[in-house]
Amino acid sequence: MAKDFQFAELLDYYGLLLTEKQRETVALYYNEDLSLGEIAENTGISRQGVRDSIKRSEMILLEAEEKLGLLRRDKEMRERLSIVRKNVDVIDNLNIKKYRSNDINESIKVILSELDKLMEM
Amino acid sequence: MAKDFQFAELLDYYGLLLTEKQRETVALYYNEDLSLGEIAENTGISRQGVRDSIKRSEMILLEAEEKLGLLRRDKEMRERLSIVRKNVDVIDNLNIKKYRSNDINESIKVILSELDKLMEM
Repeated sequence: MAKDFQFAELLDYYGLLLTEKQRETVALYYNEDLSLGEIAENTGISRQGVRDSIKRSEMILLEAEEKLGLLRRDKEMRERLSIVRKNVDVIDNLNIKKYRSNDINESIKVILSELDKLMEM
Repeated sequence: MAKDFQFAELLDYYGLLLTEKQRETVALYYNEDLSLGEIAENTGISRQGVRDSIKRSEMILLEAEEKLGLLRRDKEMRERLSIVRKNVDVIDNLNIKKYRSNDINESIKVILSELDKLMEM
């Protein structure tokens, strides 16, 4: 099977829906990029067992995204936030700082800081 | 049992993790505010059966929030977005429209529209 690294992202969102064992195995495969054989050696499970566990976990992760759509929703949020950000920059750049009131400078500072935090969530 | 209407909200987020039957029952109880007895009559399940189904569903919904924390995260996002919104309003009001460039007016319009969409997500 070819590695599809969207699973690393799905694991961030839905990892807690897996058992601890499943989560560890998927993380070794997608985050640490180990091979099935290497994971088998490290964990003492057979190569086929590792493969089955990963396949099963992938199904759970895909089903969670299908039902809850967090990734899809976050992608749209981030796109909208970056449009907001771009337009705040327009205001910040056109409206030369020294000619404007402290209130506006303060507001722009707060907006930029909150947008940064939102993008990191 | 007393009705805790946070479950109506949890149902919005995690309803698809329940079976269709569970989802319907919980919706009748929390969204339509029917009593256990009324749901039993409507669905042909015993009153005790309805109660058990709702209890089981509540557990699934609470566990989902505990693991995925969507509600908690969305609440924080909305708080941050409303801070951004308030500060955009400050800029919009202090910086009198007719004295400023069309670029700034256009940017504020775009920002407000995107923020509205983000608040509705």
